[in-house]
Parts: sequence; structure tokens; C-alpha cells
Amino acid sequence: MRSEQFSKFCRSSFVVGLALAGVLGTAVHVMAQRLKDVQVPDTPLVLKAQGSFFIGGEKVEQTQGELGDLGPGGHITVNQMYVRYMVPQGGDANVPMVMVHGATLTGKSWETTPDGRMGWDEYFVRKGHPVYVPDQVGRGRSGFNQAVFNDVRRSSVPAANLPRWIRFSDEVVWPNFRFGAKPDAPFADSQFPLTAVDELSKQGVPDVSFGGVPNPNPTLKALSDLANQVNGAVLMGHSQSGAFPLAAALLNPAMAKGLVLVEPGGCPTNYTDEQINTLATLPILVVFGDHRDTPTGIGIRPSWQLSFEGCQALIDRLKKAGGQAQMLSPAEMSIRGNSHMIMQDKNNLQIADLILKWIDERVSKRTVAAK
Amino acid sequence: MRSEQFSKFCRSSFVVGLALAGVLGTAVHVMAQRLKDVQVPDTPLVLKAQGSFFIGGEKVEQTQGELGDLGPGGHITVNQMYVRYMVPQGGDANVPMVMVHGATLTGKSWETTPDGRMGWDEYFVRKGHPVYVPDQVGRGRSGFNQAVFNDVRRSSVPAANLPRWIRFSDEVVWPNFRFGAKPDAPFADSQFPLTAVDELSKQGVPDVSFGGVPNPNPTLKALSDLANQVNGAVLMGHSQSGAFPLAAALLNPAMAKGLVLVEPGGCPTNYTDEQINTLATLPILVVFGDHRDTPTGIGIRPSWQLSFEGCQALIDRLKKAGGQAQMLSPAEMSIRGNSHMIMQDKNNLQIADLILKWIDERVSKRTVAAK
Repeated sequence: MRSEQFSKFCRSSFVVGLALAGVLGTAVHVMAQRLKDVQVPDTPLVLKAQGSFFIGGEKVEQTQGELGDLGPGGHITVNQMYVRYMVPQGGDANVPMVMVHGATLTGKSWETTPDGRMGWDEYFVRKGHPVYVPDQVGRGRSGFNQAVFNDVRRSSVPAANLPRWIRFSDEVVWPNFRFGAKPDAPFADSQFPLTAVDELSKQGVPDVSFGGVPNPNPTLKALSDLANQVNGAVLMGHSQSGAFPLAAALLNPAMAKGLVLVEPGGCPTNYTDEQINTLATLPILVVFGDHRDTPTGIGIRPSWQLSFEGCQALIDRLKKAGGQAQMLSPAEMSIRGNSHMIMQDKNNLQIADLILKWIDERVSKRTVAAK
Repeated sequence: MRSEQFSKFCRSSFVVGLALAGVLGTAVHVMAQRLKDVQVPDTPLVLKAQGSFFIGGEKVEQTQGELGDLGPGGHITVNQMYVRYMVPQGGDANVPMVMVHGATLTGKSWETTPDGRMGWDEYFVRKGHPVYVPDQVGRGRSGFNQAVFNDVRRSSVPAANLPRWIRFSDEVVWPNFRFGAKPDAPFADSQFPLTAVDELSKQGVPDVSFGGVPNPNPTLKALSDLANQVNGAVLMGHSQSGAFPLAAALLNPAMAKGLVLVEPGGCPTNYTDEQINTLATLPILVVFGDHRDTPTGIGIRPSWQLSFEGCQALIDRLKKAGGQAQMLSPAEMSIRGNSHMIMQDKNNLQIADLILKWIDERVSKRTVAAK
């Protein structure tokens, strides 16, 4: 299948340069997105505050070699979580949103879309919600623990000790993110802005979370701590982090005002009855796009329909325990063609409005004023 | 010296936990900065636009193994540069600022300070300038090329092929960033917010730019392209990137409206007369803090005074060619105690005002309206 995919891929106009380059490993320059492609809103954004900070982190002592041999050994911080935030003027009574990205991605997922439209980060702010966007521990501005890589370089530990770094090829993104069944063969109703698919490719970063961050993932505790620091939040995860809000909520249910699971890779099947009873007290929304039967090309998840069905089973179990969990499947509301990157789809604000409506109906206002 | 440093370091109250932990590699939780420590400005921030985008990037083809074995091989983008931006309402006539971070850091350098005060990113926006903050290629949200790490893991290339990842220990940061001659021994007049030095530690990320990004560093071309896309900019670098504005300007002098070199690791000594003549047409400001004679503890740069003197020599050469380069040394204006992280110092806005004054005097307004 791969050679067929690549053959099709090479007929795409945007990879003519790649076909000319020919050999494995040869690099050609990607056409840069021009800043002029980024749209300017009609009205200004008025912020009470914006900035960034860190949650969590541990001090570890490392040798000069583990620190890369530029200076002497000593202590560094690892496993901290970077968070960028925007607080709208006049939005103190509205529940804050925490938006966590998926595998091989960073907080960029929620910012300006690949084709230059407003991301969910700004849109939820404009709708009155403080918004907090982390980079997962191990990625982006949160960094990772580099010691083992330098240890292997100096042959003090075997290469087999290295965790792997994951990235998805542009070719596998097409079926896996459900833009089309194959590269350059979009679904007729696809909502993803496919003229800018190369800009999505630039959002990819190496992901060491499959073996290279502690277990349990420190991001879970950091999300719970973040919700606590803002006096309660709606926790929203996506894809690999889609189920993170459930785990973070179980660490401190009182501060999880609502959980939004956007296209989760899977929903846990092994919760105890006690855990289910806790989660049943929380408003939970699971969001899935269209074309879920598409074969992904990824061995560990043959189709997203399997993830959908697993989450539906969790919803059913929560409902039986008195919970108010529900599935949001726009395709069943005649909103067709949404992809795995639903927050970047052409109708991303329409989907955001559905989530905002659910928040208005199910999630309480804040009783404790934010600072 | 190192054991003496560490002995002193261990007397610091904030590392009592570390001393108790005792053994190499043992991790203890760092006291988390509370979000409540982050200050809220008195007046709202009114933005015409904010968001993020990428500059540059190349497509490369990689094998399934190089991509981490989760999906099939194919193409990915590498060497792109992530840029976050804020454009103030009514700031179209003012020259945009591009702020590039130094080694082992990310764009976070310019955001909220470790002790929760306003960063230069927001301050320059509030002073009317559009501000663009990249993550250097190879770091943060710009990602890096992971192929060689996965190749070594699978033993298809030798471990010696690995580039090293750099981080600075907290102990070496004290003399190297000139907070004090030794850990926990601050200069009496230190301007760095040392109660929050652990928050600076969290800003550290592994840095692969010493061997793990292409040469020349793609960040240089990306900075030049960014300046072009915004119709001209003041390019500001710091530390490792302190001289990047010079290199970016030589790629497209017309779009470099001004160059600000903040605590550059060094200034080039090998420019041709033609290059000097080009740079002599541009407003150039070099900024250095205090206590430059402090031994750094880093072999490649025994003191920052050497960097200062090298940059003074470049300024002299530019002046002889008719240039208007100048040194800004606040210590010689009776503003004492500024550190290497001058944009985060307690008097960071005072220093920013000196740079803004220089911009007003030396850098022209924009004649081409921004979009």
C-alpha cells in the first residue's frame, strides 16, 4: 500500500519538487506560508492579561556528559509543563479552558489554523473564557530529559536504551487524520483546509512520550494542578491526550468543571466502579468527526471508529452510573466531513460553538473570582 | 571549584530537598510557581491581531524506523521556524520587533518573567510595536530532525554520529548568567529576580544547535525571511543568537531596519570590507549588562568581558566605515547589576525603555503599511 500511496502522492502538484529530488533523504524547500495569508480579525482582541508560566517540574542532578559537555555537571529541571494563557477583559466569571494537544504536535494545534484562520485559543477567549494552552511534558517549550541521548553518544549506556522519537509522515496523515483515504485523494466533503496541508506538516515535532517521559505521564498531574491554580477549568484533550482530562479529573475531581475529549485515541475500559462514580459527577463531552471507518495505515489503531466505539461504551457505563456524559458527532447532525484535526477544520468555529453551547448548558459559572 | 560551588549551593534554602535527596539522578519535586504569582497589568492589552505561523522548512523523506516505527515511512517537514506574534491596535506605523532567544532556551525568554512580571514581548507591544517571537530551528515548537536518534536506537548508524544536547546546570547559570560569582552568592546589586531562579531553570530545554541543525543555521535565513514578510523589522538576538541579526541582515539588508544584539556570545571578527560597508548602513545597538569580568565556569567563554570587547571592536570597525553602531552599557550610566538575562531583570522595563529610545532616534517609521 505504501508504494501506491507514494505514487499517488507524487502526482500531487505540491510535491513536484519532491519527485524531482528523487532520492531518500534529499531535502527541498517547502513553499513558505506567507504571513499575509494569516487573517486579521474585524475587531480587536481585548485581554485582561496574557503570558506564560510553568507547572510542576523536578530537579535532577546530571553529569557534565549528560548535560552535553559545554559546562560542568549539576542540577537541572525536567518534566515541567509550559503553559501560555490569555484572559479576556471581563471574562472572570466564565470557566477557564485548558487545551492539550495530541501526539507529535504542540500547543500550536489550537492557535492560528494552517490556512491562517483564528484558532480555538483565541475564539474561546473572544467568547469570554480564559484559555490556557500547555505543551505536554517532553515536547515543545516544555523540553525533555536529554541525559540518555548524551549517555548513548558517549557509549556509557547501550543504544537500545534510547526511547524512540515519533513523527507521522505526511502520507500517513491523510488517512490517519481522515482528510482522504489516500494522499492527495480528499473526501469530497472534507472540512480540512487541504490547500494548507503543508502548513500542518510544519506543526509536527518529534514526540518522545511513548517511552521517553515518566509513567504516569507528568502532564496528567500538571493538568490537574493547573485546573486547581485557576480555581477550576474545563479540561480539553485531543487525540493522544484525548483521555488525559479523565485521568487529570480523577486526581482532583473538584477542579474539573467539565471534560471535553476531542477525537481521543481511546477511552479507558478498566475503570473501577469507584472511578466511574467519580467521573459520573462531571459533565463530559466526547467529540468525533466524520469518515471514522477510514483505514488509518497505523498498526496500533486500524480505524478511528474503534476509538469512537470504545468511548461510546464508556459514555454508556457513565450514564448507567447516573452520569451526564455524551457524544458529539457532528456528522449525525448533518455536519459532514470533519477530520481528526477538527479544531483546524474549515468549520472549526461552528464546532467550537457546539462545545460552547454544551458548556453553557452543563458547566457551572465560576463562583470563586479569578485574580 | 565545582564541589565548592555545589557545597555553597546546598546551603541555599530552596535546595534543601535536593540535599536530602542526595544521590546523583534522584529527582525531587520543585516548588511550583503559582499562577497567582503572575501579575495582572492595570490596563487591558488591545491587540489588532495575535497568532502563530511558520517560516521556512524543508521536506525530507524518512524510513519507518527513522519516523519511530509507529507508522510507515514517508515525508516530513524539518527545519521550519515557529513564530508567535502580537500586533497592537493602532501600531501599524511602528517598526515590528523580532525577538530571538539564546542557547538552551526558547521564545519563552521574552514572555512573562520568572517572578511573574511583564516580559519584553508584551511591553514592546504596549509601546506600539508588532512583536514576533520565534523558537529557533531545532528547539521548542520548531522541532528538530529526529532521524539520527532513531537510527542509532536501531543500531543502523553508530552512536558517535549523535549530536549532543546541551543544557546548563543551575549551578553554572549563577556565574555564567552573572547573578553572582557562585551559586547562592548573589551580587549585592543583582537585578535578576533571584527568588524565582528556579522558574528560570524551568525555561531550560535541550539544545541541539551545536551540531544537530544544518550549517548555516536555518534560523538565519528564516529571520531574514520573517523581516521581509513584515516589510522590515528590528531584529533582536540574545546570547547564542546575539549576533544572528547581523547574519540575517547581510542576507537582505533592506529589510533589517535595526539590529539589537543583547549580550551576544560573540561578535564576528572576520567580516569582509564589503560586509562591513553593508552593516555600516544599518542602526546597530549592542547591549551588555554588569559584572562582565565574572569567571563563567564555561570553557569556551571564560568571561563575558571578552564578548563585550569583541563587540566593541566590531562597533569601532563599523564606525570607521561610517556606521552608527553603538554600545549600550547601562552600568556606565549608573544602572548597576544587570545580568545576562537582562530582559528578565527586575529593571527590565527600564532597559527596554533605553532600547525604545534608541529605536525612536535611529530607526525609521514604516513607510509601507502592514496588513
